[in-house]
Amino acid sequence: MAILVVGSVAFDGIETPSGKVERVLGGAATYFALSASYFTDVRVIGVVGEDFTAENEAVLTRRGIDTRGIEHVEGKSFFWSGSYMGNLNEAHTLKTELNVFQSFSPKIPVAYEDSEYLFLANIDPVLQADVRAKMPRVKLVCGDTMNYWINDHRSNLEKVLKGLDGLLINDTEAKLLANDGNLVRAAKEILALGPKSLVVKHGEYGATAFFSERTFPNEPRQVFLPFRAPALPLAEVVDPTGAGDSFAGGFFGYLASQPEFTPSTFKKAMFYGGVMGSFAVEKFGTERLQQLDRKEIEERFALFRELSHLE
Amino acid sequence: MAILVVGSVAFDGIETPSGKVERVLGGAATYFALSASYFTDVRVIGVVGEDFTAENEAVLTRRGIDTRGIEHVEGKSFFWSGSYMGNLNEAHTLKTELNVFQSFSPKIPVAYEDSEYLFLANIDPVLQADVRAKMPRVKLVCGDTMNYWINDHRSNLEKVLKGLDGLLINDTEAKLLANDGNLVRAAKEILALGPKSLVVKHGEYGATAFFSERTFPNEPRQVFLPFRAPALPLAEVVDPTGAGDSFAGGFFGYLASQPEFTPSTFKKAMFYGGVMGSFAVEKFGTERLQQLDRKEIEERFALFRELSHLE
Repeated sequence: MAILVVGSVAFDGIETPSGKVERVLGGAATYFALSASYFTDVRVIGVVGEDFTAENEAVLTRRGIDTRGIEHVEGKSFFWSGSYMGNLNEAHTLKTELNVFQSFSPKIPVAYEDSEYLFLANIDPVLQADVRAKMPRVKLVCGDTMNYWINDHRSNLEKVLKGLDGLLINDTEAKLLANDGNLVRAAKEILALGPKSLVVKHGEYGATAFFSERTFPNEPRQVFLPFRAPALPLAEVVDPTGAGDSFAGGFFGYLASQPEFTPSTFKKAMFYGGVMGSFAVEKFGTERLQQLDRKEIEERFALFRELSHLE
Repeated sequence: MAILVVGSVAFDGIETPSGKVERVLGGAATYFALSASYFTDVRVIGVVGEDFTAENEAVLTRRGIDTRGIEHVEGKSFFWSGSYMGNLNEAHTLKTELNVFQSFSPKIPVAYEDSEYLFLANIDPVLQADVRAKMPRVKLVCGDTMNYWINDHRSNLEKVLKGLDGLLINDTEAKLLANDGNLVRAAKEILALGPKSLVVKHGEYGATAFFSERTFPNEPRQVFLPFRAPALPLAEVVDPTGAGDSFAGGFFGYLASQPEFTPSTFKKAMFYGGVMGSFAVEKFGTERLQQLDRKEIEERFALFRELSHLE
């Protein structure tokens, strides 16, 4: 089933202990779409400027991603630069230039209207709500957010949270959103805000999913244990940029490829999320995500199982 | 098979967001022994002062722990106090009074000499080496250490590391010992110092085991993937004191209860370590570890499996 993703398509400047790139294709929707493209059809809604070349677009279309929803406007594309020199787990932002993103108003191409899966990547919750409202018939909606929206746009964000089947955020964001330093209590408070499920990403320690009674209404057992998926221990993280979006793409891409949404598919989706995140960080930018094949992905999935399962 | 553990038997003063205790039974060997006692016979080597009462000793003997190796001398027992008010993941030490521990010289009762498993809890590596030398015929030796010994007693510590089948430390200690912030590289460097295997404890994120070619010399496959065991997401951590020692007790206790040392028993031991750590933090001091039964332990083991396994 096709996924529609709305989010940033951008250029990034990145510095890590492994090296430096001045300007590479990036943005949450880009990482998400490339990652999800190994599992299902993906359609992107976003906006770019005149600096976005045919070759940039081809990075997406070569993976079969539908880019008709990427609007080209006058001006420069969203640009972000950051450094991981001090801490590979958290970027120190050097520059954020919203550029064409500042006046972005998402438009849904007619060809996208039958998308059954919707992913609201990390953008202004007003835009997330707008796209959600324009896609009333989707089967499953997941989304992401970040500290800035949690701190300064909370009431707008809360409106989005109410309509989510799943919220995917990291530890810091979860604890901030719930204003509670204990992850289990924070998860409970976040689920009370509306999302039917919550996936908290722990970087090198994997991810934990928390479920509510509403996650799987058709399952006989209404209260689920949390589920923990591992991350791959890596001797070198070349570039952590986009790891979370790649996780989301693997997670949601796998879910969209399955006929049913069940506890079992959710758990496997968590593993595929970790798998895609582990590939993303192996090279700068989206490079590694452009070159994968399903066989490599399945092999790494098997590795994730082996490193976490008793037998 | 019987485990001999050498380490501190002490009193602790503890303050956490859940409350405060002025003085409770503690010490690494105490937590370790109570935890391991649910799996196998345990014998303790340590030293206590005149303030260590018959009732304190009964906490151990009621669990069938052999305390004949706990030497009673004039003076006061080791006392430590710490606060977790700022950070539940790391104690802020308020007071350390070595007292009778200052002149401790471990003596092995004759009745202990046939112990096949030896655990060197976190004490001066000179004492660890001394006990190790006095037990030349043990089948498996694991041990712990801490920042203080890594920083200021490194050459003594390195002598101990060479003789270990397994070193159990936390992330901070592993990165400090290897002087490398990447866990996979740090693990490789630590294994090169001598331990045949390394278990790195991640607190609320579980633990990762790293293996060398020497871990399982009789296994056909000589290089093992790391193995990741989960921790239980808990809505309240009442008192983190002793969680690492309880992990070690569950881990090593389970190993000592098994006829063979294999990749499979090692992995299960990691889960039992997490299980015992998760119990330890539910109440102040050793209270929870005194009241368990094997059925509760097996139920929680099943829970650990359910929260981390795909099926």
